[in-house]
Amino acid sequence: KERLWRIIFLSDTSGAKAFDVVLLWLIAGSILVVMLETVKSVEVFHRELLKGFEWLFTILFTIEYSLRMWVVRKKRRYALSFFGIVDLLSILPTYLEIFLTGSGHLIVIRVLRLLRMFRILKMGHHMSEADFLVSALKASRSKIAVFLFAVMAIVSIEGTLMYLIEGGREGTGFTSIPQSMYWGIVTITTVGYGDIAPVTVIGKILASVMMLTGFAIIAVPTGIVGAEIFKELSPVKMDGRKCANCQHL
Amino acid sequence: KERLWRIIFLSDTSGAKAFDVVLLWLIAGSILVVMLETVKSVEVFHRELLKGFEWLFTILFTIEYSLRMWVVRKKRRYALSFFGIVDLLSILPTYLEIFLTGSGHLIVIRVLRLLRMFRILKMGHHMSEADFLVSALKASRSKIAVFLFAVMAIVSIEGTLMYLIEGGREGTGFTSIPQSMYWGIVTITTVGYGDIAPVTVIGKILASVMMLTGFAIIAVPTGIVGAEIFKELSPVKMDGRKCANCQHL
Amino acid sequence: KERLWRIIFLSDTSGAKAFDVVLLWLIAGSILVVMLETVKSVEVFHRELLKGFEWLFTILFTIEYSLRMWVVRKKRRYALSFFGIVDLLSILPTYLEIFLTGSGHLIVIRVLRLLRMFRILKMGHHMSEADFLVSALKASRSKIAVFLFAVMAIVSIEGTLMYLIEGGREGTGFTSIPQSMYWGIVTITTVGYGDIAPVTVIGKILASVMMLTGFAIIAVPTGIVGAEIFKELSPVKMDGRKCANCQHL
Amino acid sequence: KERLWRIIFLSDTSGAKAFDVVLLWLIAGSILVVMLETVKSVEVFHRELLKGFEWLFTILFTIEYSLRMWVVRKKRRYALSFFGIVDLLSILPTYLEIFLTGSGHLIVIRVLRLLRMFRILKMGHHMSEADFLVSALKASRSKIAVFLFAVMAIVSIEGTLMYLIEGGREGTGFTSIPQSMYWGIVTITTVGYGDIAPVTVIGKILASVMMLTGFAIIAVPTGIVGAEIFKELSPVKMDGRKCANCQHL
Repeated sequence: KERLWRIIFLSDTSGAKAFDVVLLWLIAGSILVVMLETVKSVEVFHRELLKGFEWLFTILFTIEYSLRMWVVRKKRRYALSFFGIVDLLSILPTYLEIFLTGSGHLIVIRVLRLLRMFRILKMGHHMSEADFLVSALKASRSKIAVFLFAVMAIVSIEGTLMYLIEGGREGTGFTSIPQSMYWGIVTITTVGYGDIAPVTVIGKILASVMMLTGFAIIAVPTGIVGAEIFKELSPVKMDGRKCANCQHL
Repeated sequence: KERLWRIIFLSDTSGAKAFDVVLLWLIAGSILVVMLETVKSVEVFHRELLKGFEWLFTILFTIEYSLRMWVVRKKRRYALSFFGIVDLLSILPTYLEIFLTGSGHLIVIRVLRLLRMFRILKMGHHMSEADFLVSALKASRSKIAVFLFAVMAIVSIEGTLMYLIEGGREGTGFTSIPQSMYWGIVTITTVGYGDIAPVTVIGKILASVMMLTGFAIIAVPTGIVGAEIFKELSPVKMDGRKCANCQHL
Repeated sequence: KERLWRIIFLSDTSGAKAFDVVLLWLIAGSILVVMLETVKSVEVFHRELLKGFEWLFTILFTIEYSLRMWVVRKKRRYALSFFGIVDLLSILPTYLEIFLTGSGHLIVIRVLRLLRMFRILKMGHHMSEADFLVSALKASRSKIAVFLFAVMAIVSIEGTLMYLIEGGREGTGFTSIPQSMYWGIVTITTVGYGDIAPVTVIGKILASVMMLTGFAIIAVPTGIVGAEIFKELSPVKMDGRKCANCQHL
Repeated sequence: KERLWRIIFLSDTSGAKAFDVVLLWLIAGSILVVMLETVKSVEVFHRELLKGFEWLFTILFTIEYSLRMWVVRKKRRYALSFFGIVDLLSILPTYLEIFLTGSGHLIVIRVLRLLRMFRILKMGHHMSEADFLVSALKASRSKIAVFLFAVMAIVSIEGTLMYLIEGGREGTGFTSIPQSMYWGIVTITTVGYGDIAPVTVIGKILASVMMLTGFAIIAVPTGIVGAEIFKELSPVKMDGRKCANCQHL
């Protein structure tokens, strides 16, 4: 049982590594099946095959979940942990769908499908390399929050201005302030769908100002996160305290 | 009175912090109401409710403004300060609207609505964390100005060139130089609405050059602001004077 | 004459600074006139006014050019220098247009208009702050060239692949390899007009790969230019040689 | 033979440099010909000319390949090396096309054309400056992989959510989860074609969240690659070991 625990929860032995790799492929496969089920042309011709695979993956994940529950010591803590819930959500929807085959509970089936897509989060079990990303984002969390607030403030003011200028026109996209703010976010993030675009001269000038603002402001998160990552990556930490007994960076 | 001043203007006591949080939610709520008033489907069914909330927020902000005016020592200086004006603009429009309910002063109502949206700037009272953002942008102000001028120069020349090449065609979007410059800004900031796009071969080649220029030039503000933020964030300031009595970074 | 030279060519006295400011406004005004001349709705009603302003600016720039020629010692060198040519091109087109008023030399007038837009480059006379931008770009010139070549190579290969996959279809935008490469540049720079977009499944997968590549590759010029600007901005130059006699950064 | 090897494989003598430059122009010309062959309006009028050039380039590249095979010592190793295969693929397609002129093997001709476009990779022979780019990307390879996985996870979850919300509607672009994920990639990379865009209110809010996420997340690769490039470019390597005997950065 101890050995099984090592294989399932750690990845320091060859057996554990093999287990990790197999599980990653199973997850990838199961996500592919969920995705293909929504593609009409595929679903019509291979419905039975997809259902078969779905059940295969569900049974394998059920075995995995049972094993995890069996080998782990603090069962309750695991069951309520983030990955415990993710593991449960990976198997539950398929079982629930049995009770829905009769009538067309379209929305429920859709939600269950979404829950099955959360299997991708299971991959987090096996991704210790992602720590640096999480820690870099965590360290700059409060700064990014302030930044996002600043963006929202700019978008609110600009959105209202655009609604003021473009709003009265026939066939305009700026039908309300929330709509204008949606346009503002699309523009300031430089996505630019083009479904809503200014048509008046003043509107275009204002939009240009907004774009150039976005151009200058995109530098801020880059600077924040970039500086954090740079600190993480540099061989000797750029930390004043540590350097008291050294003469280099 | 002194204690009230501490609560309202500072945020170092628990009472002051509670005051801050309550006010932030009030501001958020009042902005939501202004936004929803412009959405037709919501406005038609909940007009009375929205109006009620609007008056609730206005009265609360009026109390807040009165309190601020009462506790502050230099009344005139506060009234004419940035936040003093913002606080006044947050309450004035609702009172002014009373005189306009009769006939349809559509444009005036729109402008008043905009003024009410400025309430978002009230949030600045309670955002001391935003200082680093402001100081980083301030430090790189003159450099960003030069950068924006350089972008405008590129956009002017490229816009004129595109007008020269694409302008004569039927159904073209490049109807004038300002229009071409608008396209240039949309393109160089990588927004790319697609409402104006080149159709001739030379136009497309020129546009490609423009995009790649934008790609290379976007690095400039990132470098400027990023370097500033990096300096702000590093634990020991990268300042030559300070390091005279230390041997590390 | 010596004093005039100081005023015109340098900006260290108050007279010279005033001269600079006046000229900057003149240039801005003259560019505005050129731009407005191409806007139909403005041009129809204010043709005479615009023409008047155009001549005013031309005469003022002619006086400026004459003064520069008069006070400068090495006349030939100035006349053939970059700014000498720009100054000449700022006044020549208006004089040339006199000979074209009769018949509709549309294309020639357009080209002359373009030449007048080059007046914006005159502003470079008065922009000593732009040096840091130029030097940062210059220092990373060869690296940006390599980067642009790499982008072109990716775009060529991807463009050909997309032409292979999407090319045969009815109503496709991928009608030839150059067209596909244009799409590739629009996509990799994240401009995304949407005038050409993949419709097949494999095309969409390939396009996704391209976008994510662009997402990762945009970091390269940012890193290059950013590092250069960071070096320029840091108070003590990060240069190994200089630090031989100092103990801090 | 030794001297010829120096000229062809190295670039330290003037003869070798001339050889490099000539070959770069030949490659550029040959790629231009392949590209123009797919442009209908050019192909119809200059078919014979293009074919002539194509054969000229093929013969020249054949001579080059023969020379390389002749002068290199380990022939087998060169033939199977990356550049050996690229060199072979540069000449083979033209010879293969002789056997296909009779009937319309359209797809085969297309694939051969693609293979000829790979000639652009031949340029890698002569681009020693690109090393820094490759090494910077290589050093951050594993981190970029983790980053791309994180992006894919976000896109999967968001794509499924959007399919849930927007999927049931008439004329929607979100017809399946893969389609929604394609939209997600187009949005998070800020390309934004606009061929698929949300129409419901909740969809637009979710899309806004996605865009702002992308805005914050674009900073991550920039930070990673930027930090690597910064380390490559700094005159004294920021490496703890080296600085043991120095007191500056």
